[in-house]
Amino acid sequence: MAFAFQNRVPKVFVFFFYCFFFNCGSVFAQSSPAFACDVSKNATFASFRFCDTSLGFSARVADLVSRLSLQEKILFLVDGAGSVSRLGIPKYEWWSEALHGVSYVGPGTHFSNVVPGATSFPQVILTAASFNTSLFEAIGKVVSTEARAMYNVGLAGLTFWSPNINIFRDPRWGRGQETPGEDPLLSSKYGVGYVQGLQQRDDGDRDRLKVAACCKHYTAYDVDNWKGTDRYHFNAVVTQQDMDDTFQPPFKSCVIDGNVASVMCSYNQVNGKPTCADPDLLAGVIRGQWKLNGYIVSDCDSVDVFYKTQHYTKTPEEAAAKAILAGLDLNCGSFLGQHTEAAVKAGLLNESAIDNAVSNNFATLMRLGFFDGDPSKQLYGNLGPKDVCTQEHQELAREAARQGIVLLKNTAGSLPLSPTAIKSLAVIGPNADVTKTMIGNYEGTPCKYTSPLQGLTASVATTYVPGCSNVACATAQVDDAKSIAETADATVLVVGADQSIEAESRDRVNILLPGQQQLLITEVANVSKGPVILVIMSGGGMDVSFAKSNDKITSILWVGYPGEAGGAAMADIIFGYYNPSGRLPMTWYPQAYVDKVPMTNMNMRPDPSNGYPGRTYRFYTGETVFKFGDGLSYTQFSHKLVKAPQLVSIPLEEQHICYSSNCKSVNAVEETCQNLEFDVHLRVKNMGRMTGSHTVFLFSSPPSVHNSPQKHLVGFEKLYMDGQTDALVRFKVDICKDLTVVDEVGGRKIALGNHTLHVGSLTHFFAVRI
Amino acid sequence: MAFAFQNRVPKVFVFFFYCFFFNCGSVFAQSSPAFACDVSKNATFASFRFCDTSLGFSARVADLVSRLSLQEKILFLVDGAGSVSRLGIPKYEWWSEALHGVSYVGPGTHFSNVVPGATSFPQVILTAASFNTSLFEAIGKVVSTEARAMYNVGLAGLTFWSPNINIFRDPRWGRGQETPGEDPLLSSKYGVGYVQGLQQRDDGDRDRLKVAACCKHYTAYDVDNWKGTDRYHFNAVVTQQDMDDTFQPPFKSCVIDGNVASVMCSYNQVNGKPTCADPDLLAGVIRGQWKLNGYIVSDCDSVDVFYKTQHYTKTPEEAAAKAILAGLDLNCGSFLGQHTEAAVKAGLLNESAIDNAVSNNFATLMRLGFFDGDPSKQLYGNLGPKDVCTQEHQELAREAARQGIVLLKNTAGSLPLSPTAIKSLAVIGPNADVTKTMIGNYEGTPCKYTSPLQGLTASVATTYVPGCSNVACATAQVDDAKSIAETADATVLVVGADQSIEAESRDRVNILLPGQQQLLITEVANVSKGPVILVIMSGGGMDVSFAKSNDKITSILWVGYPGEAGGAAMADIIFGYYNPSGRLPMTWYPQAYVDKVPMTNMNMRPDPSNGYPGRTYRFYTGETVFKFGDGLSYTQFSHKLVKAPQLVSIPLEEQHICYSSNCKSVNAVEETCQNLEFDVHLRVKNMGRMTGSHTVFLFSSPPSVHNSPQKHLVGFEKLYMDGQTDALVRFKVDICKDLTVVDEVGGRKIALGNHTLHVGSLTHFFAVRI
Repeated sequence: MAFAFQNRVPKVFVFFFYCFFFNCGSVFAQSSPAFACDVSKNATFASFRFCDTSLGFSARVADLVSRLSLQEKILFLVDGAGSVSRLGIPKYEWWSEALHGVSYVGPGTHFSNVVPGATSFPQVILTAASFNTSLFEAIGKVVSTEARAMYNVGLAGLTFWSPNINIFRDPRWGRGQETPGEDPLLSSKYGVGYVQGLQQRDDGDRDRLKVAACCKHYTAYDVDNWKGTDRYHFNAVVTQQDMDDTFQPPFKSCVIDGNVASVMCSYNQVNGKPTCADPDLLAGVIRGQWKLNGYIVSDCDSVDVFYKTQHYTKTPEEAAAKAILAGLDLNCGSFLGQHTEAAVKAGLLNESAIDNAVSNNFATLMRLGFFDGDPSKQLYGNLGPKDVCTQEHQELAREAARQGIVLLKNTAGSLPLSPTAIKSLAVIGPNADVTKTMIGNYEGTPCKYTSPLQGLTASVATTYVPGCSNVACATAQVDDAKSIAETADATVLVVGADQSIEAESRDRVNILLPGQQQLLITEVANVSKGPVILVIMSGGGMDVSFAKSNDKITSILWVGYPGEAGGAAMADIIFGYYNPSGRLPMTWYPQAYVDKVPMTNMNMRPDPSNGYPGRTYRFYTGETVFKFGDGLSYTQFSHKLVKAPQLVSIPLEEQHICYSSNCKSVNAVEETCQNLEFDVHLRVKNMGRMTGSHTVFLFSSPPSVHNSPQKHLVGFEKLYMDGQTDALVRFKVDICKDLTVVDEVGGRKIALGNHTLHVGSLTHFFAVRI
Repeated sequence: MAFAFQNRVPKVFVFFFYCFFFNCGSVFAQSSPAFACDVSKNATFASFRFCDTSLGFSARVADLVSRLSLQEKILFLVDGAGSVSRLGIPKYEWWSEALHGVSYVGPGTHFSNVVPGATSFPQVILTAASFNTSLFEAIGKVVSTEARAMYNVGLAGLTFWSPNINIFRDPRWGRGQETPGEDPLLSSKYGVGYVQGLQQRDDGDRDRLKVAACCKHYTAYDVDNWKGTDRYHFNAVVTQQDMDDTFQPPFKSCVIDGNVASVMCSYNQVNGKPTCADPDLLAGVIRGQWKLNGYIVSDCDSVDVFYKTQHYTKTPEEAAAKAILAGLDLNCGSFLGQHTEAAVKAGLLNESAIDNAVSNNFATLMRLGFFDGDPSKQLYGNLGPKDVCTQEHQELAREAARQGIVLLKNTAGSLPLSPTAIKSLAVIGPNADVTKTMIGNYEGTPCKYTSPLQGLTASVATTYVPGCSNVACATAQVDDAKSIAETADATVLVVGADQSIEAESRDRVNILLPGQQQLLITEVANVSKGPVILVIMSGGGMDVSFAKSNDKITSILWVGYPGEAGGAAMADIIFGYYNPSGRLPMTWYPQAYVDKVPMTNMNMRPDPSNGYPGRTYRFYTGETVFKFGDGLSYTQFSHKLVKAPQLVSIPLEEQHICYSSNCKSVNAVEETCQNLEFDVHLRVKNMGRMTGSHTVFLFSSPPSVHNSPQKHLVGFEKLYMDGQTDALVRFKVDICKDLTVVDEVGGRKIALGNHTLHVGSLTHFFAVRI
């Protein structure tokens, strides 16, 4: 989503100028939501079959489409859609965002004096670190409630282009912060949970939507702008194997398990084709194989991009035709509005293709109640400003941050600090008293902010020195920082990044702490009287090896971009009001890794022939700063295997090529199975006295066949346990999904031989045979 | 000079807005200069005595003042002065700047299509490093020629508020770049040379001025904005001793030896009084003791500042009266225009004080020919656009940079590089391809730029990687930089600062290289195949201890902000077309120094009781990164003492208190001497084969009395010598100036006992007796 994409800029610019001179004041006062079939305006609308709620969606859509001219249909191919007043269809802006709270990014949503802010949850990467699928859904539910409330007063749309479930493949990616991390399973679970939270109605009606979510950016998109290669020009060269076992699974889950109402295609090309012009990827996979019930939308101006920037077609009409024929239904931007009619007239596509596209769009709006008349009489019609930023919602924002924050180092139990024993706390660092930094990108105006400094000051007396004027930290102010650390009982350094370092269109070139932050930290730690707690606020991982190995730095916390309540959540953990349970959703690499790996190399698997080390915990075996899944607690948890198989036999059907004995020597067989699963049961005990949450990870390592991952996550479960108690955790391992590997041509096979399960330090071997 | 001071901002803003909408194009086309007594407009003007060039200035000024009402006189107390049409006096804008070339800072000067640029010399700190007094004057002369040429086409004024001769007391000062450094003698010589270059007419008429210079900012001003203390609030607490032997000497020389036409008082207070409201400092010292022939001007809005910000007076009328009564003649700003009449009416000052002030202003304009009718008929009246940016002027800009650039390290003669042997040169660093950075602040539009990269590329094949996106260097791009350094025959790293790091209103808080520059340099040096030349572009010194001690970094050059031709000059030195001869005009301190010394402590002398280490080479004895006067050549120069005294006897007059023998035991006597001097002659030899310039420094160390400096510069002489030749250098040591010390109450005394002279590694002892 290019919220500052150049084609959009002039509009905003003019608006700012206008208001500069004429002091517009509050531009958006309370008004009515956009909806069709408003019989109070015109009683004849009741006679339209498409307004008849007793009919099925497909009949209503067919009726609506049949009433429109070609020119009118084309109005519904772009995000700034409509209107057709004779049919009572108002304008509708499709583009709203809600990545981690209702956002003002996108023209469909605004804040005003009526709704001045919405709950701003942690940036997604931190929420993902909670490894709590019910939390993912709970957040989505709050966001959709606030979104509906804002729709009802004319401040928001019903279609939100979130979540972003691209794989966080390279630590430099500026938008990695928006994603649930590097693991396909976690990304899938996050996507499904958040989509369901946004979409599912409390009345259980699964044909209808609370709001419409959108899984983006399809697919293999994770280079924004790295050393002159930007997403508008980048061709992601992806093997079929990586495509099928890394890049596509989150999208597949999102459509099949999450029933998402939309998928957005990306700017980049995949293997030489723009994703928004690729019929195999869109019509073939999303709609054909996965059976999307909803609409496919382009990233903003991405049709324009593949025509003008990528020169993928010779004429704009060809570009329009290619996009629609590939399966695109909606264009964020104006390109299809300008060139589709000419494309039809030139014979490049039939009107029926347009009927198909707009039908998908209309069907989505129907599922949202847009054609059901007055929204105030529908479910969620009573939601309003009172339902935004409720105490409960704000508490959930704080809880989400608490559950995500990761404790990475804690020498000699330096944390938690005792709020009664600490008489003075030195708070230092460019992110120690930030507000907007905490809410990352694709943000909205939050309900309120609690900065780290505010959070800490609520419990103990603090002195504060920023140490650098901003995160770029061109010149660290070391002396003042040292002088407060010298005398304080403990020191908290809040450092890291912000959108000036990692952002949309801004990939990093190195992953060290920016500027002179390392100098600041080291000098301060060197003179600190008490324990030194290093808090890293960032989306991507940082090479903080220096801090890991510095004995003066007693604790390290990673807080992502922790949202509006980030400072409160941080203090909850530092003072032991909450026992940390977050686990890293991505590998933290050393700087040497990015020095040798071009960001543009999409390969997940190592290539020993040229020293390419591969990517993510599934394939990379080199040195790390911190590992995927790392995260400490204030207590210890033990795992004991209660139930697991020693042997798994794969039954082959008679027609299987391996049914006869001539396959006995192969190391993997084509997947033919369905509904084959086995149980793994574990007893987990909280060995300490403190209540705490704990995520149980079940990893599986297949035998090494077809360049399979060294291990991969097959399940995770977050437990909340009082001290000295235990619990039974039951995993069902789906043999067909969890034990299989993807071969070089994208076939899924079951690896034969010895597999290993890993849970914490515990390993269990079992054999798989045919 | 507050070129972005808030009171000024709205004007510029409105102008920008206006032009944004209406596309003004070239705003300032060729027009006529402002001047009075234009008889072609009105023949009666010829009858005014003040227009009569046959009369003396004082009679003409008296006539003019007598014709003006109080209200009209007040029009001439502010920089945007005039007009009085009945007398043929047009508006005149006093505020123009020419720190190192005609500048667009200040409303009096503009560039246009008629004169699109002017010669932009190195920032002053680098010119000072040349230690070449004839160069200081030569630059001033070019600048005044270009200024006159621009005046003649209506693009500039005649009054330029340059040079800045404050002592560069602390390495953090953002405006240290504008000054000639930390030494009072060098500052004095620079000020006198530059002022004479600007002011002196080629016809030898010393009553008249080519343009009017201004020595600023009087006095003890060298804190801009450090950790929340800004110049508008700062009270410089200065001992009488430091005042008289450090802060005042450059101003005293400027007025007495340079005959400057103006002195500007500063924003800060000195010992509790705003300088612009201090009758002792202005009327007493500048006009009374030093006999200024010219006008005293306030820094911009500084009258407003001492009233509104410093609350030095209760009412604005008192502020106006205090300033004028203290000796201020002209107010940069509008304050005196608004409040002077009310001050007179309130009886706070007499009109005669205003007569006095405007008389000083008018006298200056008369000396400039402003009241002599058509400038085209006067000396310099033929100068025009053709005389700006001449080839000669641009060559002088290059020569000035060459003479200033300082070679600080050159292991095993790694420099000069052979342009024929170097087949590939890696050029790296955030300042490697900069343009505007090279011209520092108080800049104008230059004639043309030669960036370092362009300069180097003119001689050898280069590859270039910036390494950081800007000098703040939040994230260094180490890998690309390394890859070009690995294969190149030599590597040049151009790093340092710019106005985002050190500037007006922006003092540094640390003096390390900004952000991750050190990382970039170290990593690149580590893999470089050939010699590594580190080029530091900065105004203030940098703690580059890491580079000094890193054997992989073979050479270090400091290039200041080298002006428009900086890249060419740098290349001249790197490739040995020019033998470097610059010497540091200020101490380069280690970071530990600034960690322990508050910038706001004005004391020059150490205080052993609290560990305060003192400042500058004259008083500071601790560790340095590089010393005042450091600077290598490609050749060696030897010094041999030819003539120097063994004994200096001070003759006392009969009435002197020490004439009788009872003073024999004191260690210093009150200065009573005049015109006492002795010779020091040296034979200097260029031992090498390469022609080169060489600065001979003559330092003197008095016996330790009255906290005297450990040593101080009493003379310097720059020689240009062919290889294997020698020259005789003659210094005249002025006993009364050069051997005396200032005591605690500001008295000047001759230290008795053993003095030492130092020239390079040579020392000579001699005794002083009465």
